[in-house]
Amino acid sequence: MIGDHAELLLANETFYEAFAAGDVASMDGLWAREAPVACIHPGHNALIGREAVMESWTQILSGGGAEGFHCEQPQASLTDGAGFVTCLEVMGGHKLIATNVFFKEHDRWHMVHHHAGPVA
Amino acid sequence: MIGDHAELLLANETFYEAFAAGDVASMDGLWAREAPVACIHPGHNALIGREAVMESWTQILSGGGAEGFHCEQPQASLTDGAGFVTCLEVMGGHKLIATNVFFKEHDRWHMVHHHAGPVA
Repeated sequence: MIGDHAELLLANETFYEAFAAGDVASMDGLWAREAPVACIHPGHNALIGREAVMESWTQILSGGGAEGFHCEQPQASLTDGAGFVTCLEVMGGHKLIATNVFFKEHDRWHMVHHHAGPVA
Repeated sequence: MIGDHAELLLANETFYEAFAAGDVASMDGLWAREAPVACIHPGHNALIGREAVMESWTQILSGGGAEGFHCEQPQASLTDGAGFVTCLEVMGGHKLIATNVFFKEHDRWHMVHHHAGPVA
């Protein structure tokens, strides 16, 4: 059995795999269904609520994903039932910096917030 | 007695009051001492760990704070012992968008992560 910290990093990895693959179903399964969720896409205002957040992902991923998009330098911090990961989002020569927040629902890490933005 | 949700928003407010007032002691008291903390200043890579994070705040606040700097449209989501707030950071005509993550330590909300960046 792996620990909470490793499971949190795996959930974070699931997010980037779903993003890269354009896998809307996996993305939908990752986002929390009970806690209120939010999402801040680069340069945008916060989307609040599951409907608005999933609508944005469906639109973003409908082009078929982003091959090669991946996460580097993930750093996790967690307490009972919640945690966050900071990481770089890398695709080719482009980088963004991200914060991903997860809560446990039904004993599994679910994403409740994603915030990505520019990094020098 | 106020609820967890209101207390979380008050902790978020404490952050902006400390920022505006240049109050390093209040900022230091707000940040968690047990959980690993992180901080992403606008356009920068993540600072990891309390020492690096507090060093950055001491430097930022040493100029005497930022009068008028405040938070608008805070939206909170929480579970037992952890939560996050998204909000706009406003000063004059300038806006940033932020994510603030809090864990409960010794029955009080403490900041474990701050991520601010540009918003259109």
